[in-house]
Amino acid sequence: MRGVVMYAPGDVRVEEREDAKIVEPTDAVIRVTAACICGSDLWPYRGIEALNGPTPMGHEYIGIVEQIGDDVRDIKVGDYVVGSFVASDNTCEICRAGYQSRCVHNVMMGSVGTQAQLARIPLADGTLVATPGAPDADLVPSLLAASDVLGTGWFAAVAAEAGPGKTIAVVGDGAVGLSAVLAAKQLGAERIIAFSRHPERQALAREFGATDIIEERGDAGAARVKELTGGYGAHGVVEAVGTEESMWQAINSARPGGYVGYVGVTHGVKLDGLDLFFTGVHLHGGPAPVRRFLPELIQLIWDRAIDPGKVFDLTLPLEDAAEGYRAMDERRATKVLLTL
Amino acid sequence: MRGVVMYAPGDVRVEEREDAKIVEPTDAVIRVTAACICGSDLWPYRGIEALNGPTPMGHEYIGIVEQIGDDVRDIKVGDYVVGSFVASDNTCEICRAGYQSRCVHNVMMGSVGTQAQLARIPLADGTLVATPGAPDADLVPSLLAASDVLGTGWFAAVAAEAGPGKTIAVVGDGAVGLSAVLAAKQLGAERIIAFSRHPERQALAREFGATDIIEERGDAGAARVKELTGGYGAHGVVEAVGTEESMWQAINSARPGGYVGYVGVTHGVKLDGLDLFFTGVHLHGGPAPVRRFLPELIQLIWDRAIDPGKVFDLTLPLEDAAEGYRAMDERRATKVLLTL
Repeated sequence: MRGVVMYAPGDVRVEEREDAKIVEPTDAVIRVTAACICGSDLWPYRGIEALNGPTPMGHEYIGIVEQIGDDVRDIKVGDYVVGSFVASDNTCEICRAGYQSRCVHNVMMGSVGTQAQLARIPLADGTLVATPGAPDADLVPSLLAASDVLGTGWFAAVAAEAGPGKTIAVVGDGAVGLSAVLAAKQLGAERIIAFSRHPERQALAREFGATDIIEERGDAGAARVKELTGGYGAHGVVEAVGTEESMWQAINSARPGGYVGYVGVTHGVKLDGLDLFFTGVHLHGGPAPVRRFLPELIQLIWDRAIDPGKVFDLTLPLEDAAEGYRAMDERRATKVLLTL
Repeated sequence: MRGVVMYAPGDVRVEEREDAKIVEPTDAVIRVTAACICGSDLWPYRGIEALNGPTPMGHEYIGIVEQIGDDVRDIKVGDYVVGSFVASDNTCEICRAGYQSRCVHNVMMGSVGTQAQLARIPLADGTLVATPGAPDADLVPSLLAASDVLGTGWFAAVAAEAGPGKTIAVVGDGAVGLSAVLAAKQLGAERIIAFSRHPERQALAREFGATDIIEERGDAGAARVKELTGGYGAHGVVEAVGTEESMWQAINSARPGGYVGYVGVTHGVKLDGLDLFFTGVHLHGGPAPVRRFLPELIQLIWDRAIDPGKVFDLTLPLEDAAEGYRAMDERRATKVLLTL
């Protein structure tokens, strides 16, 4: 099968890989119908995260089930499926509490590499959610978004306690941040403040439900949120970047007792404990338990109630994945969809 | 009036101070009937926090109202009152959301110095809660505990989501940690794991409701919690120390998606963002909004449903405050009550 492999920072190749196959009886193999490039794939691409030799890439996917292991009960060959970027059994206590990304048997799909024609999905019954049928072509990007960025933005908005009457600020105007804006709107937030300096992203943020845009960053950005909220700060804030500046921008944008949902994979962040103590915020985040939200998100997409696929602003065939990485690295694209 | 003043690390004196008096029309002046020494008073005593010249000490208090300002409406002269260690208007949006310790008009009572015969209480109507009457002598320690340590432990247990069916671990066997054990029990926790190496504190923890005691600390302590909870970790953990080791002990004792309520005033803690990210816990803490809980706590004490005053293991007259500081510093006493 053809698949994306990263050899070194900046060196991404599409090449022949061994076909994905059933290893465990709980596995499925899917024919990937669309995959994409994640903001987190840029960390090794930029040399910020170390690579351990040539590495198959990709952890987001939708596709059609081709094979199932002997112990797979709920997922059938031929099902059109969406799964999270973390495989989970969906039965352990952690899963049942809604934290499938931290399932006691979790498998990070990045270890599989879903930017490929075929992908092995561990724990298929717990991981995959079948759509109501084969989707219309225009729904494919949105269903793919559910696999990671939408589910992550949704989790962050839930962690930020987005809901009726609430003011929610969103730090980060990438695909996850924009998805969080959409999620906050769906969850009923009254006012949604997006931080962005990019005209196109500002426009999509507004389309997704942002009521206010702030161009300032860091302390100045947080101060603007305070100004817009009677001096109190937002009820909840989504952090979808992962730097020290963005973490404090988020924390300081929240009011005392407010909620910060952080989903940017943090890099080089050291939070001063005493500063955090006196903010009095609720801080919750980590790898999003996307599986928790998938059934609801798939239905919203199927019903055309939301259109999160708009975060994809560049579509390329799998063979051109290297150009997709370059476009995201150079910020020419927010999010790249790879067709197969 | 007589009052405690700290001159330098280790140098605490009881001396004549100017009588407390009404400054703002929203003030009250109370005759303090009991005060106490807080674990946080030990930070400057040990030279870990800088002193800015001779400093009146104390932020916990109960007493009888002697004077009220012209704008005080609800509190009357002669009322027996308990207040939090932070004065609050109890009317702003932050207060109404239950975060009175971060009231937009908050005044830290440490700036008043309540280890004294009289104390000025700012924002008296929002800050003070009158008891049903003059308390029996045996209720005085418990009512005083409500002013800070009980209210703080209670907040931490609430932040840790203590409740029916839950396993709650408590890091810290000082007065706040022990109060958190009591709170977790009252809130209905099924299993309460206390970390302690001190036989007397272990005994009080068990009396307050602890079902398990762990003597190990740090990673070894967290590993023991995992062992006791089927490998998952506690549903919620209270952190009531404030060091880097205790913070990670608490965070690592919680399961993914679990809740950490941290109320130890953090000193020298730098939380690694990526480590925190992958724990997936909810982290909430800061200066406890004791005022939120005071009416309920006073009633529980009045009804003799709880006896949090047992955290006081040394009672001294105000004049002997220096010995009280020494006893707490040398860990001969958990918590010192000062009589007036």
